[in-house]
Amino acid sequence: MNTSDTLQRLAAVIESRRGGDPNLSYVARLLAKGNDAILKKIGEEATEVVMAGKDGERQKIVAEMADLWFHCLVALAHHGLSPADVLVELDRREGLSGLEEFALRRAQQREHEGKKP
Amino acid sequence: MNTSDTLQRLAAVIESRRGGDPNLSYVARLLAKGNDAILKKIGEEATEVVMAGKDGERQKIVAEMADLWFHCLVALAHHGLSPADVLVELDRREGLSGLEEFALRRAQQREHEGKKP
Amino acid sequence: MNTSDTLQRLAAVIESRRGGDPNLSYVARLLAKGNDAILKKIGEEATEVVMAGKDGERQKIVAEMADLWFHCLVALAHHGLSPADVLVELDRREGLSGLEEFALRRAQQREHEGKKP
Amino acid sequence: MNTSDTLQRLAAVIESRRGGDPNLSYVARLLAKGNDAILKKIGEEATEVVMAGKDGERQKIVAEMADLWFHCLVALAHHGLSPADVLVELDRREGLSGLEEFALRRAQQREHEGKKP
Repeated sequence: MNTSDTLQRLAAVIESRRGGDPNLSYVARLLAKGNDAILKKIGEEATEVVMAGKDGERQKIVAEMADLWFHCLVALAHHGLSPADVLVELDRREGLSGLEEFALRRAQQREHEGKKP
Repeated sequence: MNTSDTLQRLAAVIESRRGGDPNLSYVARLLAKGNDAILKKIGEEATEVVMAGKDGERQKIVAEMADLWFHCLVALAHHGLSPADVLVELDRREGLSGLEEFALRRAQQREHEGKKP
Repeated sequence: MNTSDTLQRLAAVIESRRGGDPNLSYVARLLAKGNDAILKKIGEEATEVVMAGKDGERQKIVAEMADLWFHCLVALAHHGLSPADVLVELDRREGLSGLEEFALRRAQQREHEGKKP
Repeated sequence: MNTSDTLQRLAAVIESRRGGDPNLSYVARLLAKGNDAILKKIGEEATEVVMAGKDGERQKIVAEMADLWFHCLVALAHHGLSPADVLVELDRREGLSGLEEFALRRAQQREHEGKKP
């Protein structure tokens, strides 16, 4: 599967909706509503991913994750960014190993903290 | 840019960490902690995306989105899923247009509702 | 101001709606929809509190916090709990000082961790 | 139980910590860190409430709700607000009935929308 096509194609379609008729396009409408409306959707969809994850239903997890990623792409577009910017950042972290060294040190220290208040 | 490489490579690395030494790998540690620890990270990172989005700082948005997507990949791995499953789902919705028709109808009806309580 | 009246009165009214006509009561409807619908609202309203907090608009913060607390009361009712249970828990932590000692130790350790991955 | 004592007392203690030594007080430290750190906690604790709600474990729900409300009080203090402001707002909505009429109309319309995209 060529996954890049999906994200890049979705981003291109989202971009093409900017300034379009809000009565003909969900994305045009959401972009027109602006930053708060878009970010609110990210909070909503993340909550649904968490709930689907608690249920452990794989089909539901996939559907909610798709919703979350879709609205992430809208947020990126709103701020003049593309999915490639995020993927480049993930690459920039010099591979998971480098990222892991850092995250691991942080996680180890966190576990010495005991339970939260 | 070949974006597919990034997600698929990250997913493969995450998968390879499963069952690994939690003292040597952040991902092994997070996967070992289990579902709640992983989902909690998604809630945290989504909140940080929302805050970065409010600030409108593009570099921060990219960094927080990268954190969110990374932990989404861990959640997918935990549930035996891959990023390809999510991308296939996005494709399955038969393009943004079909998705938009549906979402648009929903959004239009929502706007007749007035403000929330 | 007698703040206890508000939370306890709201909880009592919410409780009285349980099993009521979903066409006549928002709370009856939300309780009938069940756990996921209620929890989703908490995620949504928390996101709105965060966004209002970023804006720093006090009236908006108050309004969104009221929404959040209201849906917290519905969630408590759904699980057979009352606001008093939460307040007793806050009391049980033996005052903010005890809670603070614990939280402080945790926060100090966290700050040695450096930035997140 | 006199619930008002708890919220008002907690708010007073939180207020008294403002400007205090971050090495001696979790609240002083959190207030000193500022808006983002406080709001991030609200996102985190809300996610934990949602997860506890999915588990349906009452003791866990109470504990996570206490964490959420506590950090809500810190957020209110940061913005020069008190729990009384939120409770007055809840009262101002002229009782749950008035609030419900409004919310019900909104919820009914929402249900005509069908599933989300």
